[in-house]
Amino acid sequence: MSQSVDLLITPCTVLVHGPHEEVGFRQDVAVVVRGGVVEAVVGAGDVGRFDAVEVIDGRGQVLLPGLINCHTHAPMVALRGIAEDLPVEEWFDGVVWPVEANLTARDVALGARLACAEMIRGGVTCFADHYFHMDEVAAVVEECGMRALLGQAYFSSQGTEGRERSLEFALRNRGRADGRITTALAPHAPYTVTDADLAATAALARAHGLPVHLHAAENRAQTEASLERHGVTPVEVLERAGLLDTGMELLIAHGTGILDRDIEVLRRAGGRVAVATAPRGYLRFAWPTTTPVRALREIGVPVGLATDGAASNNSLDLWEAMTLTALIQKSTTGDPRWLTARQALHHATVQSADAVGLGDVVGRIEPGRRADLILVDLTGPHTQPVHDLAATLVHSVRSGDVRTTIVDGRVLMRDRELTTIDVPGVVRELGERLPALVERGHGRRIQRYGVEEAAEKSSGVRDEFR
Amino acid sequence: MSQSVDLLITPCTVLVHGPHEEVGFRQDVAVVVRGGVVEAVVGAGDVGRFDAVEVIDGRGQVLLPGLINCHTHAPMVALRGIAEDLPVEEWFDGVVWPVEANLTARDVALGARLACAEMIRGGVTCFADHYFHMDEVAAVVEECGMRALLGQAYFSSQGTEGRERSLEFALRNRGRADGRITTALAPHAPYTVTDADLAATAALARAHGLPVHLHAAENRAQTEASLERHGVTPVEVLERAGLLDTGMELLIAHGTGILDRDIEVLRRAGGRVAVATAPRGYLRFAWPTTTPVRALREIGVPVGLATDGAASNNSLDLWEAMTLTALIQKSTTGDPRWLTARQALHHATVQSADAVGLGDVVGRIEPGRRADLILVDLTGPHTQPVHDLAATLVHSVRSGDVRTTIVDGRVLMRDRELTTIDVPGVVRELGERLPALVERGHGRRIQRYGVEEAAEKSSGVRDEFR
Repeated sequence: MSQSVDLLITPCTVLVHGPHEEVGFRQDVAVVVRGGVVEAVVGAGDVGRFDAVEVIDGRGQVLLPGLINCHTHAPMVALRGIAEDLPVEEWFDGVVWPVEANLTARDVALGARLACAEMIRGGVTCFADHYFHMDEVAAVVEECGMRALLGQAYFSSQGTEGRERSLEFALRNRGRADGRITTALAPHAPYTVTDADLAATAALARAHGLPVHLHAAENRAQTEASLERHGVTPVEVLERAGLLDTGMELLIAHGTGILDRDIEVLRRAGGRVAVATAPRGYLRFAWPTTTPVRALREIGVPVGLATDGAASNNSLDLWEAMTLTALIQKSTTGDPRWLTARQALHHATVQSADAVGLGDVVGRIEPGRRADLILVDLTGPHTQPVHDLAATLVHSVRSGDVRTTIVDGRVLMRDRELTTIDVPGVVRELGERLPALVERGHGRRIQRYGVEEAAEKSSGVRDEFR
Repeated sequence: MSQSVDLLITPCTVLVHGPHEEVGFRQDVAVVVRGGVVEAVVGAGDVGRFDAVEVIDGRGQVLLPGLINCHTHAPMVALRGIAEDLPVEEWFDGVVWPVEANLTARDVALGARLACAEMIRGGVTCFADHYFHMDEVAAVVEECGMRALLGQAYFSSQGTEGRERSLEFALRNRGRADGRITTALAPHAPYTVTDADLAATAALARAHGLPVHLHAAENRAQTEASLERHGVTPVEVLERAGLLDTGMELLIAHGTGILDRDIEVLRRAGGRVAVATAPRGYLRFAWPTTTPVRALREIGVPVGLATDGAASNNSLDLWEAMTLTALIQKSTTGDPRWLTARQALHHATVQSADAVGLGDVVGRIEPGRRADLILVDLTGPHTQPVHDLAATLVHSVRSGDVRTTIVDGRVLMRDRELTTIDVPGVVRELGERLPALVERGHGRRIQRYGVEEAAEKSSGVRDEFR
């Protein structure tokens, strides 16, 4: 009696997780998918008992859990390369925030579509997005087949309306797209959202069972400014606001300004706190520190991998984030043995799934998990020979080596061809809209960067999103 | 009357160089190639007067000078991933040098072929190689169509024979493959080659008009050890040996241990000194510094881009070297405005050509230069939209976006298909040889790493290459 299933990937090598953060590989297996879920992982010789609608040949490839981009602003791909070689304050105040004053829902929809195309092609199956006009992003996620944790961003300069819309978005969209969409409250950062608004956010998170996704302690200068002004670090601001212990996930982007004293705060927190690291941007802006991954791991905080938006990161390439995380950790700790290729793969899979609140849903290839899977080609000259498959994946494979991307058992890219997004059409329409989008003659901006947050909060910066 | 030419690339956007290190782009042009040389760069509307044997459609692509890998050990791709997450001394003494004791000419030939396949696919048209059994590498270069500066490496532990073979190789092979092969003397480094041998090398370089390519001041620890032992830095050792002023190129690999006092030495040198930077390895080994690119540029020393060997770099990806050079320079100087995307492109083209002694031959797309050209596809979602083409090239493009690679007017890759190398055949035979290559039970090694060079030089380390 053969068993009817939807999808069979065979034969292939598959990444497996051990009970103590080990990452390994099983060769010559078949992965069986039914109803969007991994039904079984069996020996390649045992596939005779399955009758599959679709069979994918995995020879010469390795099957991994789909990558997760734990912090991005997907629609910002529309601004890729628009503000290069600048310090972060000029990048924000001189270009990005003035341009974002022009942003329309249509720009966001097109940007999100282009971003999803890039991510699917690079083996990313899930992303945590933090931006504006998020209904458009949700519609794109629904249509293109990806998985996402979505949050509508807000500043205190928007009054209470920003927070209310963030909540309304989160409640209305959670569970959408057959459960592929989860949602979060998304205050921008402690330097743009008041303590009172952060406390209100914590109360909403607890009341509604919603995660919170925000920027905090992005760089050392922010931490120092916070200490000077308020006597507490950004992480302590979060603690005081009750955000570290809402019973739901708190996803902190960047955290390169996390101090030793913050590690103690996080250790005590007892909540579900995670940090997303996007190391390329820290280099680009010449920040003096990177995310303290080692200290965070010592207290059990998951550190997910991320690209941030393409206006600062130039790509949504998780493979680059993975290799840079390993290299920059070695460099900044002065220890070539930290962080190993296998550890990098653990960050990219289990820890990233935990960071976006999907630790029980994806991140491992095991029966019962959603079938978010990617096949990576190892036959290119740049990935041969293979002495150490973990090292090959982290340090030699490039995003273009992903041949097949699957979410919830549905093939979103087959042999490098996208099945759900028309890239030329998106690029054409986005190109027509760019002149209006990048116009800065109006002199407006959606927010002002820097350490002057207390003054800003009362300065009546115009809210361009009402 | 139409003019017969070999190759016409039209229409395309082409990278152009200004008189003062400016990098720009000309749109809607055609590049005309005859006899392996760029004959003309004309408006795309002016191609009617050319009758070309082959026409390549450049739409949606940008044409760049082929990339140059200024320091590698190409055959070491055979050891890609073999020794991960280790300090440099364990990497050398525990794995690489014991394994290299097994190295045969056939291993080198296969490794070189695989490396050339990887480089051609990544848009590298020329490489500076520093290894053993270099006749095999020269044969591969001749056959696969690339351009190369080749040097047979030697240690003083080999006695005078090593140096003599390096000279003999250089004299016999220079000008080979229709001039695509140039050669250099290739002492390993000041910590493995005695002062007397370095001085003899300088005399040979001057007498025979040969460049010298070596490692020096690779890291800060080497410089400190040299100061402690000899009272001089590695760069000062080179100066004393006469290597800074032979009248020919001196190509120094790495130089992360170059001090301010060395900058003064190099400023005085008046010779043709260049440095190759391969920043990924410095991160991997957690070295405390990177190549002092800014200080070197201030005194006019060209800094070429490089990957080093794949056993330490995991790839021969010049795009990654380019993006990392820009990012790590920003990070280590603390200045986000240094080094810009355009500066990175200048390093990758003009400065890299200068570094390998081919500054008058390649590195620019101009009439009279050899036709070493690559076409880079910009239609992928990860490279759209294009606000700043230099930034797109340096920070968004991936090696897999190179669609066409041309050397001396000959197409070595067309639409991602290699025309001169059979990758599966190479991978198969190399795979069969790997068990014998990686065997370390013999307890031998070709050299010993570290600061104990004085002792080592007289310790009679066995020379496995005689």
